[in-house]
Amino acid sequence: MASKGQSLHAKAGENIFAKNPKVSAELLALTYGAFVHRLIKDDGATTSSASAGSGENAEEVNAILDKMGYNIGCRMVDEFFAKAPQQGLCRDLNDTAKVIGEQAFKMFLGVTAEVASFDSENKAFSLILRENPLADFVILPAAYANKLWYSNLLCGVIRGALEMLNMKVACYFRKDILRGHDCTEMRVELKEIIKDKYEEDDDEK
Amino acid sequence: MASKGQSLHAKAGENIFAKNPKVSAELLALTYGAFVHRLIKDDGATTSSASAGSGENAEEVNAILDKMGYNIGCRMVDEFFAKAPQQGLCRDLNDTAKVIGEQAFKMFLGVTAEVASFDSENKAFSLILRENPLADFVILPAAYANKLWYSNLLCGVIRGALEMLNMKVACYFRKDILRGHDCTEMRVELKEIIKDKYEEDDDEK
Repeated sequence: MASKGQSLHAKAGENIFAKNPKVSAELLALTYGAFVHRLIKDDGATTSSASAGSGENAEEVNAILDKMGYNIGCRMVDEFFAKAPQQGLCRDLNDTAKVIGEQAFKMFLGVTAEVASFDSENKAFSLILRENPLADFVILPAAYANKLWYSNLLCGVIRGALEMLNMKVACYFRKDILRGHDCTEMRVELKEIIKDKYEEDDDEK
Repeated sequence: MASKGQSLHAKAGENIFAKNPKVSAELLALTYGAFVHRLIKDDGATTSSASAGSGENAEEVNAILDKMGYNIGCRMVDEFFAKAPQQGLCRDLNDTAKVIGEQAFKMFLGVTAEVASFDSENKAFSLILRENPLADFVILPAAYANKLWYSNLLCGVIRGALEMLNMKVACYFRKDILRGHDCTEMRVELKEIIKDKYEEDDDEK
Protein backbone atom coordinates (compact mmCIF):
# COMPACT_ATOMS: atom_id res chain seq x y z
CA MET A 1 0.00 0.00 0.00
CA ALA A 2 2.47 2.58 -1.16
CA SER A 3 0.81 4.66 -3.85
CA LYS A 4 -1.21 7.76 -3.10
CA GLY A 5 -4.38 6.41 -4.67
CA GLN A 6 -4.33 3.39 -2.41
CA SER A 7 -3.94 5.31 0.75
CA LEU A 8 -6.81 7.65 -0.15
CA HIS A 9 -9.25 4.80 -0.56
CA ALA A 10 -7.91 3.10 2.55
CA LYS A 11 -8.25 6.30 4.55
CA ALA A 12 -11.82 6.84 3.39
CA GLY A 13 -12.66 3.25 4.28
CA GLU A 14 -11.16 3.65 7.72
CA ASN A 15 -13.02 6.89 8.45
CA ILE A 16 -16.35 5.44 7.42
CA PHE A 17 -15.71 2.25 9.38
CA ALA A 18 -14.87 4.31 12.47
CA LYS A 19 -18.09 6.34 12.28
CA ASN A 20 -20.63 3.60 11.67
CA PRO A 21 -22.27 1.07 14.01
CA LYS A 22 -20.22 -2.03 14.63
CA VAL A 23 -20.51 -5.41 16.27
CA SER A 24 -17.79 -7.76 17.49
CA ALA A 25 -16.06 -9.69 14.75
CA GLU A 26 -16.42 -12.81 16.89
CA LEU A 27 -20.18 -12.58 16.84
CA LEU A 28 -20.16 -12.46 13.04
CA ALA A 29 -17.69 -15.35 12.87
CA LEU A 30 -19.69 -17.52 15.26
CA THR A 31 -23.00 -16.70 13.59
CA TYR A 32 -21.65 -17.31 10.09
CA GLY A 33 -20.04 -20.54 11.30
CA ALA A 34 -23.28 -21.81 12.82
CA PHE A 35 -25.16 -21.19 9.58
CA VAL A 36 -22.52 -22.79 7.37
CA HIS A 37 -22.52 -25.77 9.72
CA ARG A 38 -26.25 -26.05 9.26
CA LEU A 39 -25.99 -25.83 5.47
CA ILE A 40 -23.48 -28.66 5.50
CA LYS A 41 -25.72 -30.83 7.62
CA ASP A 42 -28.91 -29.83 5.87
CA ASP A 43 -27.92 -30.37 2.36
CA GLY A 44 -26.59 -33.74 3.26
CA ALA A 45 -30.01 -34.59 4.59
CA THR A 46 -32.01 -33.36 1.64
CA THR A 47 -29.97 -34.43 -1.37
CA SER A 48 -30.08 -38.04 -2.39
CA SER A 49 -26.44 -38.75 -3.08
CA ALA A 50 -24.78 -37.00 -0.19
CA SER A 51 -24.89 -37.90 3.44
CA ALA A 52 -24.40 -35.32 6.15
CA GLY A 53 -20.80 -34.62 6.88
CA SER A 54 -19.43 -36.70 4.02
CA GLY A 55 -18.26 -33.66 2.11
CA GLU A 56 -20.22 -34.67 -0.95
CA ASN A 57 -22.50 -31.67 -0.74
CA ALA A 58 -19.63 -29.19 -0.51
CA GLU A 59 -20.15 -27.94 -4.08
CA GLU A 60 -23.78 -27.34 -3.33
CA VAL A 61 -22.97 -25.43 -0.15
CA ASN A 62 -20.43 -23.35 -2.08
CA ALA A 63 -23.16 -22.45 -4.57
CA ILE A 64 -25.68 -21.59 -1.84
CA LEU A 65 -23.19 -19.34 -0.07
CA ASP A 66 -22.36 -17.62 -3.35
CA LYS A 67 -26.01 -17.01 -4.12
CA MET A 68 -26.74 -15.66 -0.65
CA GLY A 69 -23.74 -13.39 -0.98
CA TYR A 70 -25.02 -12.20 -4.35
CA ASN A 71 -28.26 -11.01 -2.75
CA ILE A 72 -26.34 -9.32 0.04
CA GLY A 73 -24.03 -7.62 -2.46
CA CYS A 74 -26.95 -6.24 -4.43
CA ARG A 75 -28.18 -4.46 -1.30
CA MET A 76 -24.78 -3.60 0.09
CA VAL A 77 -23.78 -1.56 -2.93
CA ASP A 78 -26.46 1.02 -2.06
CA GLU A 79 -25.16 1.23 1.50
CA PHE A 80 -21.68 1.61 0.15
CA PHE A 81 -22.49 4.59 -2.05
CA ALA A 82 -24.71 6.17 0.58
CA LYS A 83 -21.81 6.16 3.03
CA ALA A 84 -18.87 6.50 0.69
CA PRO A 85 -19.82 8.90 -2.09
CA GLN A 86 -17.08 8.47 -4.66
CA GLN A 87 -15.30 11.39 -6.25
CA GLY A 88 -16.21 10.02 -9.65
CA LEU A 89 -16.75 6.76 -11.42
CA CYS A 90 -13.94 4.26 -11.36
CA ARG A 91 -11.89 4.91 -14.48
CA ASP A 92 -10.82 1.32 -14.92
CA LEU A 93 -10.76 -2.08 -13.28
CA ASN A 94 -7.63 -1.12 -11.42
CA ASP A 95 -9.56 1.63 -9.70
CA THR A 96 -12.50 -0.67 -9.04
CA ALA A 97 -10.20 -3.25 -7.47
CA LYS A 98 -8.71 -0.71 -5.10
CA VAL A 99 -12.10 0.64 -4.05
CA ILE A 100 -13.24 -2.90 -3.27
CA GLY A 101 -10.11 -4.09 -1.52
CA GLU A 102 -9.15 -1.00 0.41
CA GLN A 103 -12.38 0.84 0.97
CA ALA A 104 -15.32 -1.57 0.80
CA PHE A 105 -13.60 -4.43 2.65
CA LYS A 106 -12.51 -2.04 5.37
CA MET A 107 -15.96 -0.50 5.69
CA PHE A 108 -17.75 -3.78 6.14
CA LEU A 109 -15.27 -6.40 7.34
CA GLY A 110 -12.88 -4.08 9.15
CA VAL A 111 -9.88 -5.41 7.24
CA THR A 112 -8.36 -4.47 3.89
CA ALA A 113 -7.75 -6.83 1.01
CA GLU A 114 -4.58 -6.35 -1.00
CA VAL A 115 -5.02 -6.03 -4.75
CA ALA A 116 -2.61 -8.25 -6.70
CA SER A 117 -1.93 -10.25 -9.85
CA PHE A 118 -3.66 -8.22 -12.57
CA ASP A 119 -3.60 -10.17 -15.79
CA SER A 120 -1.97 -8.74 -18.95
CA GLU A 121 -5.28 -7.57 -20.37
CA ASN A 122 -6.24 -5.79 -17.16
CA LYS A 123 -9.43 -7.81 -16.92
CA ALA A 124 -8.78 -9.94 -13.86
CA PHE A 125 -7.24 -9.40 -10.45
CA SER A 126 -6.85 -11.01 -7.07
CA LEU A 127 -7.87 -9.82 -3.62
CA ILE A 128 -5.57 -11.12 -0.91
CA LEU A 129 -6.82 -11.40 2.64
CA ARG A 130 -4.18 -11.80 5.34
CA GLU A 131 -6.88 -12.13 7.97
CA ASN A 132 -10.46 -13.14 7.42
CA PRO A 133 -12.93 -12.23 10.17
CA LEU A 134 -15.49 -14.72 8.83
CA ALA A 135 -13.16 -17.62 9.41
CA ASP A 136 -11.92 -17.04 12.94
CA PHE A 137 -12.15 -20.11 15.18
CA VAL A 138 -12.82 -22.35 12.17
CA ILE A 139 -11.31 -25.74 11.47
CA LEU A 140 -12.79 -27.43 8.41
CA PRO A 141 -14.00 -30.99 8.93
CA ALA A 142 -11.62 -33.34 7.09
CA ALA A 143 -14.25 -34.35 4.54
CA TYR A 144 -14.67 -30.70 3.53
CA ALA A 145 -11.07 -29.55 3.75
CA ASN A 146 -10.45 -29.59 0.00
CA LYS A 147 -13.97 -29.04 -1.23
CA LEU A 148 -15.69 -26.34 0.76
CA TRP A 149 -14.86 -22.69 0.13
CA TYR A 150 -15.92 -21.67 3.58
CA SER A 151 -16.10 -17.92 2.92
CA ASN A 152 -17.75 -18.21 -0.48
CA LEU A 153 -20.37 -15.69 0.64
CA LEU A 154 -17.73 -13.01 -0.03
CA CYS A 155 -17.44 -14.02 -3.70
CA GLY A 156 -21.19 -13.67 -4.06
CA VAL A 157 -21.14 -10.26 -2.39
CA ILE A 158 -18.54 -8.98 -4.86
CA ARG A 159 -20.38 -10.49 -7.82
CA GLY A 160 -23.71 -9.01 -6.72
CA ALA A 161 -22.35 -5.57 -5.94
CA LEU A 162 -20.48 -5.29 -9.23
CA GLU A 163 -23.45 -6.51 -11.22
CA MET A 164 -25.48 -3.63 -9.80
CA LEU A 165 -22.77 -1.42 -11.27
CA ASN A 166 -23.13 -3.05 -14.68
CA MET A 167 -20.06 -5.26 -14.38
CA LYS A 168 -20.64 -8.95 -14.86
CA VAL A 169 -17.80 -10.77 -13.14
CA ALA A 170 -16.79 -14.26 -12.19
CA CYS A 171 -15.50 -14.38 -8.63
CA TYR A 172 -14.06 -17.41 -6.89
CA PHE A 173 -11.53 -18.48 -4.27
CA ARG A 174 -8.11 -19.65 -5.33
CA LYS A 175 -6.61 -20.06 -1.89
CA ASP A 176 -7.85 -20.17 1.66
CA ILE A 177 -5.82 -20.12 4.84
CA LEU A 178 -8.37 -22.65 6.15
CA ARG A 179 -7.03 -25.08 3.55
CA GLY A 180 -3.47 -24.55 4.66
CA HIS A 181 -2.57 -21.98 2.00
CA ASP A 182 -0.31 -19.07 2.83
CA CYS A 183 -3.10 -16.52 2.38
CA THR A 184 -6.70 -16.26 1.31
CA GLU A 185 -7.03 -15.27 -2.35
CA MET A 186 -10.16 -14.39 -4.28
CA ARG A 187 -9.99 -14.02 -8.05
CA VAL A 188 -12.24 -11.52 -9.83
CA GLU A 189 -12.58 -11.75 -13.63
CA LEU A 190 -14.45 -9.13 -15.61
CA LYS A 191 -16.66 -10.91 -18.14
CA GLU A 192 -18.80 -8.16 -19.58
CA ILE A 193 -19.80 -4.56 -19.11
CA ILE A 194 -23.59 -4.63 -19.19
CA LYS A 195 -25.03 -1.89 -21.35
CA ASP A 196 -27.27 0.33 -19.26
CA LYS A 197 -30.73 -0.16 -20.66
CA TYR A 198 -31.82 3.31 -19.64
CA GLU A 199 -28.93 4.94 -21.39
CA GLU A 200 -30.42 4.98 -24.87
CA ASP A 201 -34.03 5.76 -24.30
CA ASP A 202 -33.59 8.34 -21.59
CA ASP A 203 -35.87 11.22 -22.58
CA GLU A 204 -33.69 13.84 -21.05
CA LYS A 205 -30.73 13.09 -23.24
CA MET B 1 -28.55 3.14 34.27
CA ALA B 2 -28.16 5.06 37.45
CA SER B 3 -26.62 2.76 40.03
CA LYS B 4 -22.89 2.32 40.46
CA GLY B 5 -22.99 -1.39 39.74
CA GLN B 6 -24.58 -0.86 36.39
CA SER B 7 -22.16 1.70 35.19
CA LEU B 8 -19.18 -0.47 36.15
CA HIS B 9 -20.40 -3.36 34.02
CA ALA B 10 -21.30 -1.01 31.20
CA LYS B 11 -17.89 0.64 31.34
CA ALA B 12 -16.10 -2.70 31.23
CA GLY B 13 -18.24 -3.78 28.30
CA GLU B 14 -17.44 -0.60 26.43
CA ASN B 15 -13.71 -0.86 27.02
CA ILE B 16 -13.58 -4.44 25.82
CA PHE B 17 -15.74 -3.65 22.81
CA ALA B 18 -13.44 -0.77 21.89
CA LYS B 19 -10.31 -2.90 22.04
CA ASN B 20 -11.44 -5.95 20.10
CA PRO B 21 -11.83 -6.61 16.36
CA LYS B 22 -15.09 -5.42 14.91
CA VAL B 23 -17.06 -5.58 11.69
CA SER B 24 -19.83 -3.35 10.43
CA ALA B 25 -23.20 -3.97 12.04
CA GLU B 26 -24.74 -3.85 8.57
CA LEU B 27 -22.72 -6.81 7.43
CA LEU B 28 -23.97 -8.86 10.37
CA ALA B 29 -27.56 -7.72 9.76
CA LEU B 30 -27.45 -8.53 6.05
CA THR B 31 -25.75 -11.88 6.62
CA TYR B 32 -28.12 -12.90 9.38
CA GLY B 33 -31.06 -11.76 7.25
CA ALA B 34 -29.92 -13.82 4.28
CA PHE B 35 -29.63 -16.93 6.44
CA VAL B 36 -33.00 -16.46 8.13
CA HIS B 37 -34.53 -15.93 4.71
CA ARG B 38 -33.07 -19.21 3.59
CA LEU B 39 -34.35 -21.03 6.66
CA ILE B 40 -37.83 -19.74 5.95
CA LYS B 41 -37.71 -20.90 2.34
CA ASP B 42 -35.93 -24.14 3.10
CA ASP B 43 -38.08 -25.45 5.81
CA GLY B 44 -41.12 -24.75 3.72
CA ALA B 45 -39.63 -26.96 1.05
CA THR B 46 -38.69 -29.87 3.26
CA THR B 47 -41.55 -30.20 5.69
CA SER B 48 -44.74 -31.74 4.44
CA SER B 49 -47.35 -29.41 5.88
CA ALA B 50 -45.78 -26.05 5.25
CA SER B 51 -45.21 -24.37 1.94
CA ALA B 52 -42.44 -21.83 1.46
CA GLY B 53 -43.38 -18.36 2.54
CA SER B 54 -46.73 -19.37 4.05
CA GLY B 55 -45.58 -18.70 7.58
CA GLU B 56 -46.49 -22.22 8.65
CA ASN B 57 -42.90 -23.14 9.36
CA ALA B 58 -42.28 -20.12 11.57
CA GLU B 59 -42.29 -22.19 14.75
CA GLU B 60 -39.75 -24.51 13.28
CA VAL B 61 -37.49 -21.64 12.20
CA ASN B 62 -37.79 -20.15 15.70
CA ALA B 63 -36.60 -23.48 17.12
CA ILE B 64 -33.71 -23.75 14.64
CA LEU B 65 -32.53 -20.23 15.42
CA ASP B 66 -32.72 -20.95 19.14
CA LYS B 67 -30.71 -24.14 18.76
CA MET B 68 -28.05 -22.46 16.64
CA GLY B 69 -27.85 -19.68 19.19
CA TYR B 70 -27.46 -22.25 21.96
CA ASN B 71 -24.35 -23.66 20.26
CA ILE B 72 -22.97 -20.16 19.75
CA GLY B 73 -23.65 -19.28 23.40
CA CYS B 74 -21.79 -22.36 24.61
CA ARG B 75 -18.68 -21.14 22.81
CA MET B 76 -19.18 -17.47 23.43
CA VAL B 77 -19.11 -17.83 27.18
CA ASP B 78 -15.43 -18.81 27.00
CA GLU B 79 -14.67 -15.77 24.89
CA PHE B 80 -16.55 -13.66 27.35
CA PHE B 81 -14.54 -14.77 30.36
CA ALA B 82 -11.26 -14.67 28.46
CA LYS B 83 -11.85 -11.02 27.63
CA ALA B 84 -13.86 -9.90 30.61
CA PRO B 85 -12.47 -11.58 33.70
CA GLN B 86 -15.05 -10.94 36.39
CA GLN B 87 -14.19 -9.70 39.83
CA GLY B 88 -16.00 -12.64 41.31
CA LEU B 89 -18.94 -14.86 40.67
CA CYS B 90 -22.31 -13.22 40.24
CA ARG B 91 -23.90 -13.13 43.67
CA ASP B 92 -27.44 -13.42 42.41
CA LEU B 93 -29.58 -13.32 39.30
CA ASN B 94 -29.71 -9.55 39.53
CA ASP B 95 -25.96 -9.46 39.07
CA THR B 96 -26.12 -12.00 36.27
CA ALA B 97 -28.76 -9.95 34.47
CA LYS B 98 -26.63 -6.82 34.59
CA VAL B 99 -23.52 -8.60 33.36
CA ILE B 100 -25.50 -9.96 30.41
CA GLY B 101 -27.37 -6.80 29.53
CA GLU B 102 -24.72 -4.21 30.12
CA GLN B 103 -21.45 -6.01 29.57
CA ALA B 104 -21.98 -9.04 27.32
CA PHE B 105 -24.47 -7.37 24.96
CA LYS B 106 -22.16 -4.38 24.60
CA MET B 107 -19.11 -6.57 24.02
CA PHE B 108 -20.67 -8.58 21.23
CA LEU B 109 -23.55 -6.59 19.73
CA GLY B 110 -22.26 -3.11 20.49
CA VAL B 111 -25.47 -2.12 22.26
CA THR B 112 -26.66 -2.52 25.84
CA ALA B 113 -29.84 -4.21 26.94
CA GLU B 114 -31.73 -2.69 29.82
CA VAL B 115 -32.56 -5.02 32.70
CA ALA B 116 -36.20 -4.76 33.78
CA SER B 117 -39.24 -6.45 35.31
CA PHE B 118 -37.72 -8.79 37.87
CA ASP B 119 -40.44 -11.03 39.26
CA SER B 120 -41.20 -11.13 42.99
CA GLU B 121 -39.14 -14.27 43.55
CA ASN B 122 -36.13 -12.80 41.77
CA LYS B 123 -36.08 -15.71 39.36
CA ALA B 124 -37.02 -14.03 36.10
CA PHE B 125 -36.14 -10.78 34.38
CA SER B 126 -36.44 -9.01 31.05
CA LEU B 127 -33.78 -7.61 28.76
CA ILE B 128 -35.01 -4.62 26.79
CA LEU B 129 -33.36 -3.72 23.50
CA ARG B 130 -34.05 -0.25 22.17
CA GLU B 131 -32.06 -1.02 19.06
CA ASN B 132 -31.28 -4.42 17.64
CA PRO B 133 -28.35 -4.63 15.21
CA LEU B 134 -29.54 -8.03 13.96
CA ALA B 135 -32.80 -6.60 12.73
CA ASP B 136 -31.70 -3.52 10.80
CA PHE B 137 -33.25 -3.24 7.32
CA VAL B 138 -35.74 -5.97 8.16
CA ILE B 139 -39.44 -6.03 7.34
CA LEU B 140 -41.12 -9.31 8.21
CA PRO B 141 -43.16 -10.88 5.42
CA ALA B 142 -46.86 -10.61 6.32
CA ALA B 143 -47.25 -14.36 6.78
CA TYR B 144 -44.50 -14.33 9.42
CA ALA B 145 -45.30 -11.05 11.14
CA ASN B 146 -46.95 -12.63 14.18
CA LYS B 147 -45.21 -15.99 14.19
CA LEU B 148 -41.51 -15.57 13.57
CA TRP B 149 -39.24 -14.34 16.35
CA TYR B 150 -36.69 -13.03 13.93
CA SER B 151 -33.85 -12.60 16.43
CA ASN B 152 -34.48 -15.85 18.26
CA LEU B 153 -30.79 -16.69 17.90
CA LEU B 154 -30.19 -14.29 20.80
CA CYS B 155 -32.42 -16.34 23.13
CA GLY B 156 -30.42 -19.41 22.26
CA VAL B 157 -27.14 -17.61 22.92
CA ILE B 158 -28.26 -16.58 26.40
CA ARG B 159 -29.61 -20.05 27.15
CA GLY B 160 -26.41 -21.72 25.95
CA ALA B 161 -24.07 -19.36 27.75
CA LEU B 162 -25.92 -19.62 31.05
CA GLU B 163 -26.12 -23.39 30.83
CA MET B 164 -22.33 -23.47 30.63
CA LEU B 165 -22.42 -21.58 33.92
CA ASN B 166 -24.73 -24.15 35.47
CA MET B 167 -27.88 -22.13 35.11
CA LYS B 168 -30.72 -23.76 33.23
CA VAL B 169 -32.97 -21.00 31.94
CA ALA B 170 -35.90 -20.56 29.62
CA CYS B 171 -35.39 -17.60 27.33
CA TYR B 172 -37.91 -16.25 24.85
CA PHE B 173 -39.09 -13.07 23.18
CA ARG B 174 -42.08 -11.22 24.52
CA LYS B 175 -41.94 -8.21 22.21
CA ASP B 176 -40.17 -7.29 19.03
CA ILE B 177 -40.02 -3.90 17.36
CA LEU B 178 -40.30 -5.83 14.09
CA ARG B 179 -43.80 -6.82 15.17
CA GLY B 180 -44.75 -3.23 15.88
CA HIS B 181 -44.09 -3.36 19.64
CA ASP B 182 -42.58 -0.35 21.39
CA CYS B 183 -39.35 -2.20 22.18
CA THR B 184 -37.74 -5.60 21.86
CA GLU B 185 -38.08 -7.62 25.07
CA MET B 186 -36.51 -10.95 25.93
CA ARG B 187 -37.62 -12.80 29.02
CA VAL B 188 -35.15 -14.95 30.98
CA GLU B 189 -36.50 -17.38 33.59
CA LEU B 190 -34.19 -19.31 35.87
CA LYS B 191 -35.39 -22.91 36.02
CA GLU B 192 -32.63 -24.71 37.86
CA ILE B 193 -29.13 -24.36 39.17
CA ILE B 194 -27.34 -27.42 37.83
CA LYS B 195 -25.17 -29.08 40.43
CA ASP B 196 -21.59 -29.13 39.27
CA LYS B 197 -20.79 -32.81 38.82
CA TYR B 198 -17.12 -32.23 39.49
CA GLU B 199 -17.79 -30.51 42.73
CA GLU B 200 -18.18 -33.60 44.84
CA ASP B 201 -15.66 -36.02 43.44
CA ASP B 202 -12.86 -33.56 42.84
CA ASP B 203 -9.75 -35.26 44.25
CA GLU B 204 -8.04 -32.06 45.18
CA LYS B 205 -10.77 -30.93 47.51
